[in-house]
Amino acid sequence: MIAERMKNLHPYVPGEQPKDRTYIKLNANENPYPPSPLVAKAVEKAAKKYAKKMALYPDPDSNELKTAIASMLNDCGGVLARAKVCGGKKNGSGAKVEPCPADKIPFTVTPDMIYAGNGSDEVLSFVFYAFFDSDRELVLPEHTYSFYPVYGGFYNIPLKKIPLNGDWTLNKEKMLEAANENDSSIIFANPNAPTSLGLSRSEVREMIKAAPKDRIFVVDEAYVDFGGESCIPLLAEFDNLVIVRTFSKSLCGAGLRLGYVVSSPELVNYITTVKNSLNHFPVDFMAQQAGIAACRDTGYYAECAKSVAFERDEFIDFLRAHGWFVLDSQTNFVFCKKDGVLGEEAYKKIKQEGILVRHFNTPGIEEFLRITIGTHGQMKALCAVMENI
Amino acid sequence: MIAERMKNLHPYVPGEQPKDRTYIKLNANENPYPPSPLVAKAVEKAAKKYAKKMALYPDPDSNELKTAIASMLNDCGGVLARAKVCGGKKNGSGAKVEPCPADKIPFTVTPDMIYAGNGSDEVLSFVFYAFFDSDRELVLPEHTYSFYPVYGGFYNIPLKKIPLNGDWTLNKEKMLEAANENDSSIIFANPNAPTSLGLSRSEVREMIKAAPKDRIFVVDEAYVDFGGESCIPLLAEFDNLVIVRTFSKSLCGAGLRLGYVVSSPELVNYITTVKNSLNHFPVDFMAQQAGIAACRDTGYYAECAKSVAFERDEFIDFLRAHGWFVLDSQTNFVFCKKDGVLGEEAYKKIKQEGILVRHFNTPGIEEFLRITIGTHGQMKALCAVMENI
Repeated sequence: MIAERMKNLHPYVPGEQPKDRTYIKLNANENPYPPSPLVAKAVEKAAKKYAKKMALYPDPDSNELKTAIASMLNDCGGVLARAKVCGGKKNGSGAKVEPCPADKIPFTVTPDMIYAGNGSDEVLSFVFYAFFDSDRELVLPEHTYSFYPVYGGFYNIPLKKIPLNGDWTLNKEKMLEAANENDSSIIFANPNAPTSLGLSRSEVREMIKAAPKDRIFVVDEAYVDFGGESCIPLLAEFDNLVIVRTFSKSLCGAGLRLGYVVSSPELVNYITTVKNSLNHFPVDFMAQQAGIAACRDTGYYAECAKSVAFERDEFIDFLRAHGWFVLDSQTNFVFCKKDGVLGEEAYKKIKQEGILVRHFNTPGIEEFLRITIGTHGQMKALCAVMENI
Repeated sequence: MIAERMKNLHPYVPGEQPKDRTYIKLNANENPYPPSPLVAKAVEKAAKKYAKKMALYPDPDSNELKTAIASMLNDCGGVLARAKVCGGKKNGSGAKVEPCPADKIPFTVTPDMIYAGNGSDEVLSFVFYAFFDSDRELVLPEHTYSFYPVYGGFYNIPLKKIPLNGDWTLNKEKMLEAANENDSSIIFANPNAPTSLGLSRSEVREMIKAAPKDRIFVVDEAYVDFGGESCIPLLAEFDNLVIVRTFSKSLCGAGLRLGYVVSSPELVNYITTVKNSLNHFPVDFMAQQAGIAACRDTGYYAECAKSVAFERDEFIDFLRAHGWFVLDSQTNFVFCKKDGVLGEEAYKKIKQEGILVRHFNTPGIEEFLRITIGTHGQMKALCAVMENI
């Protein structure tokens, strides 16, 4: 009774959410801090003062949210952990923010350059639908966000997976070679997952220059706020660049289901057309209010991102001092392994002690653990366990 | 730069949401009443007490919400306007509810028979993906929910549209003939939109019996709570029946973005697989909390549905007394026309007086208006305008 196309589906498997005991959850790259106090207030207000609006369809295009996102990007330069926080409370709430000089965007991001949707997963699926054809291979790294191949199956888009270099960096040359051979699009996460390694903006610029001009080039910046380099400034140079970002990581909002695209108004319009052909109102009223409030408290989230980056660097030092091989992370997680220990084995030992981390059964990365950075207390508890592995 | 498949898209156009002045909105079939007071409280609590959960991924399968939906259906028999409300406050909040004897479901709806998603539009799109093939025509009425043809374009599913009978009812014989000719699926809304007419459960039973057994039969019950007959009891007889329902109409929750499927656990699993291949977490934390609270206050929504049905019947009497042709409505809207007046013309006159209703430029229904039932005050204001058309 099911449709033929169902055969192509290989659903994504997210980090486990066991209910048998309370774990320290370091397996889904969530942020250990709650959203800004302004978010809780905005949702409360939505419920109390505007309850009647819950009965009405929300703004289908989340216009106020798009405006707030654009302002936030202009304020922080697109990389929270590197932005300067001036004033505000101890946690940064209410503070003004200035971009790190190297991050300053050389134009003003406008709301028509933003598409806002129901988490970056939905947004990515619309990008796949709008821009990647079924008659040419999409080029992507062999190890990257594991939802990309799922979308490929969903929309019947063939994939060309390019193995990483020996040092786990992207093989830019081979990716470009493959893209030019078939006049194909390219997608990758930057910083990449699960490796945590990032390309600099100038490296991405050189890649886009050498890639097909008539095909969309997608950079997924889910993790960039923790210390990568954003490619938003490159939108001034390339009209085929699509940048995908999320509220789930640096904006402490995985539960809000908000993601967005930054691109040219023209490409944003295509994504909006896809949305309007599938689900006219993907972002509910409360989530829109929550997102608007979040974007107005950039100082708070910059402090959170800085705390995560600090804990991460301490944790990397600790692991290396204890014999672990750890990649240099620009994200809110680390990718690490120890000689003679399989990822699954280490994962099980850590789980026994009440902490969840992630391992992969994917060939090539079975030795690794992907560990989300938590609070100082959580990382201390984890170090005590990992010391003995 | 866009994908070939984009050519198939003809996006859905929802009721207008103009910002130039404050209108009485009777153009989107929204409910004029706010959600239950318990919903506002639940969202407030989610924000205040569980703010930290907003930073974590929500339950991907909305299990608690599915349980609450199943209970609600068992409590009210699937048709709120016909259920008996016992006790509670004046508005029914906190009251117990009993199904109208004719609606009582002859089995217990269990959570594994529910799929809960981001509005019935998203849910419908997953149903199209999971069950309708690209090599055979899906059978549907010529005039029905106008998003169905949009999904057809989105997933490249050919459609066989069957004209309505002269009295605007579904042409069941021709639909069955077409479905059996190509071994096809059937979809329609019951009650149907924009006609507001419904089939009885026994009529649908006869249709399913005569339709292909190996193809999915979909009944969209978006409006059934206002006085139609639900086909949920038929799930005991047919394993190819899929029922789609929404929180947007009778549950005063268009802004919450919640919709659901009731079907066999096996078919629900297929829809879940589609979800997990596109967007793992379509329902955010606040919406899950809001939906759970709504399902626990069936008495409140039963009273709202009864009020809407009462206003509707009064309004139909008024229109008929003033020379309008009005179909018998089982929904929260009426479909009406007046000799010598085009829908667009009437729409414009009514808009001038600050009230929005809907007209269609679709051939065959250009003479009609589709008018949502509002509060008593709103309907009084509308009557004063329509008297003079």
